Amino acid sequence: MKNPNIVILGAGYGGIMTAVKLQKSLGANDANVTLVNKHSYHYQTTWLHENAAGTLHHDRTRIQIKDVVNTSKINFVQDSVTAIKPDQKKVLLENGELSYDYLVIGLGFEAATFGIPGLKEHAFTIGSINSARLIRQHIEYNFAKYNNEADKKQERLNIVVGGAGFTGIEFVGELANRVPELCKEYDVPRENVRIINVEAAPTALPGFDPELVEYAMNSLEGRGVEFKIGAMIKEVTADKLVFEKDEQREEIPTNTVVWAAGVRGNSIVEEAGFESNRGRTPVSDELRPKGYDDVFIVGDCALLFNEETERPYPPTAQIAIQQAEHTAENLTKLVKGNGHLEPFKPDLKGTVASLGHNDAIGVVFDDKKLFGWSATAMKKVIDNRYLLKLGGPGLLMKKGKLNFFF
Amino acid sequence: MKNPNIVILGAGYGGIMTAVKLQKSLGANDANVTLVNKHSYHYQTTWLHENAAGTLHHDRTRIQIKDVVNTSKINFVQDSVTAIKPDQKKVLLENGELSYDYLVIGLGFEAATFGIPGLKEHAFTIGSINSARLIRQHIEYNFAKYNNEADKKQERLNIVVGGAGFTGIEFVGELANRVPELCKEYDVPRENVRIINVEAAPTALPGFDPELVEYAMNSLEGRGVEFKIGAMIKEVTADKLVFEKDEQREEIPTNTVVWAAGVRGNSIVEEAGFESNRGRTPVSDELRPKGYDDVFIVGDCALLFNEETERPYPPTAQIAIQQAEHTAENLTKLVKGNGHLEPFKPDLKGTVASLGHNDAIGVVFDDKKLFGWSATAMKKVIDNRYLLKLGGPGLLMKKGKLNFFF
Repeated sequence: MKNPNIVILGAGYGGIMTAVKLQKSLGANDANVTLVNKHSYHYQTTWLHENAAGTLHHDRTRIQIKDVVNTSKINFVQDSVTAIKPDQKKVLLENGELSYDYLVIGLGFEAATFGIPGLKEHAFTIGSINSARLIRQHIEYNFAKYNNEADKKQERLNIVVGGAGFTGIEFVGELANRVPELCKEYDVPRENVRIINVEAAPTALPGFDPELVEYAMNSLEGRGVEFKIGAMIKEVTADKLVFEKDEQREEIPTNTVVWAAGVRGNSIVEEAGFESNRGRTPVSDELRPKGYDDVFIVGDCALLFNEETERPYPPTAQIAIQQAEHTAENLTKLVKGNGHLEPFKPDLKGTVASLGHNDAIGVVFDDKKLFGWSATAMKKVIDNRYLLKLGGPGLLMKKGKLNFFF
Repeated sequence: MKNPNIVILGAGYGGIMTAVKLQKSLGANDANVTLVNKHSYHYQTTWLHENAAGTLHHDRTRIQIKDVVNTSKINFVQDSVTAIKPDQKKVLLENGELSYDYLVIGLGFEAATFGIPGLKEHAFTIGSINSARLIRQHIEYNFAKYNNEADKKQERLNIVVGGAGFTGIEFVGELANRVPELCKEYDVPRENVRIINVEAAPTALPGFDPELVEYAMNSLEGRGVEFKIGAMIKEVTADKLVFEKDEQREEIPTNTVVWAAGVRGNSIVEEAGFESNRGRTPVSDELRPKGYDDVFIVGDCALLFNEETERPYPPTAQIAIQQAEHTAENLTKLVKGNGHLEPFKPDLKGTVASLGHNDAIGVVFDDKKLFGWSATAMKKVIDNRYLLKLGGPGLLMKKGKLNFFF
């Protein structure tokens, strides 16, 4: 009997964790497992805002796939997925084609720009190592240019972040740390630089406890971040952003807009023919799309409802990792032919948002609130726990956030 | 009797060394000495190519004026000179006006672009801390953008340096060291990057011994520098450079042209009404322009003929420093009223051109040639000797190039 082919698309949180778990639970004679990824490396998407601000080098955020995946057990194909053909059980790649018996889709998110004019063309998004280091360099380049121009351009020093959700808040927190360093490097007075966070909702961090939101805003405002809450972005051009608040239009001259206010599922999933809503496909308790029992979706492209709240679970790293571990177990059962598949149930441990190097807020274990150092420490514990799970103590020592007293 | 006012314009090699020498030779009751400079810092122009390549941080190259000038003895005015009125014995500043009894002009060079179309608008020049760190960031920004574009643009990775004279050669030498680091940082294959040095003269390093020129070109070509010798730049645009060689036109797609092929004296000197040739004013043996015995010119704006070769001395740091020391002695005599002024005679000790971190060529003490490590070491000795002279052992320890075995 031929070994089944298991193909995993994407080496984000979901894809790489599925691969790492399968390499432990399956033997070489059980299945052929192939991991496909665009780059030779995995990266922690939740750290990218630090790379984008320039407060952490991107080599701390990325992990070479061959350092955690045993390529004598798992095939690694570095290529881009161009289409999924679930009826033919095939995946098309830029430079090839793969057939599968079981498919795991972990293709991650895309930015959603909601048709706001100019946003797609002129705003940056924090979505990959490439885009994060471009943002870092773009900001720095504008600082470098500032003193070289006879007419000083304020738009070089205004940094606007669209969205005060999780990513937006974490990013402005890092910027608040980074900007004083840039000012020193380029002889620019700190008071000339603005960090402006624009949020359409009536509050920053919608969904968070109001006490935590207030703590976060106070911490960030204390370090020079300006908030425009309840402000709708109307247009972005190469040198300005226009928003509307309280029925007043306002323009901010800026060369740097970073859009952190909307994500959607992957368009390849949408185009594959699965039922989907903005790239997210409703999945069963076993994380399978309707009608395709050989396909599992993990991470940002899976739309799973929380029965208690009747709302979908958010696309977080925490859930993607749990879905991957669960899917690896289910696939092992399928391949080895023992037992029926288990339903997935997320085990939500809490959420921590950093506010720069040495401040954070969070909720852990059923509504216990954390502020300041304890939240910062908890954030590092979460990040380190993931590294330990992914690559063991060696990876933790190499890439972990071990400076708890910084 | 009123103390004479001595005003020194510019804190480059010539200006700052004049100030430092005067603060030793004159007492508080001898004269009021005022140093005027645009920035709060002095910098070593001969190190700027390293800052521009990104191989040395600009804070190593600049020295805060208050760290070497005793501001209880010498006034420091941070301002830009807008005009010199020698007939009124006045200097106009952006934010003020100074009267002098004796004036020392050390305003340095400007880039000369010889009317080549687009050069002024699109090329960078290595002329200041601001322009050097902009070049560093410009190159890095293009590397950062490269992998973010679906259509890879070769012009982002082609760096063209106009001129294979002293500065051009030293700059490409640093680039040859820097580019592999940038390739690693931005995941760009080294073979995709070109460093191209375009020189109109029939040889690189015109005026240098042919054996040294060959050594330099071999060293640089071995590290991936391409030379276009005997090639006239015809035009520069935002994304290309056009040159003509052997009656053939050739285009290089590039976003980065660094012009290192021409300097001229300062236009303020020209506009002051002194006789001048492209901003350089012929000076007497006492370094004074004709008809103005109260004005001394040191450094790049002074045009002084070498009687042996019947050609002007080149505008080098070495000569500027010697002129400054000489002028400080002459001013001391004038102020104290003892003795007549001494004629200036340069004491040429040699020239060393670096070819990156660990290679160099040079001629010292009457035509002794140096290559490789010995030349690199000699270059550091020269740089360190200057720091010692300017600010003593403290400055040498802080800013010196002390790693002789790198």
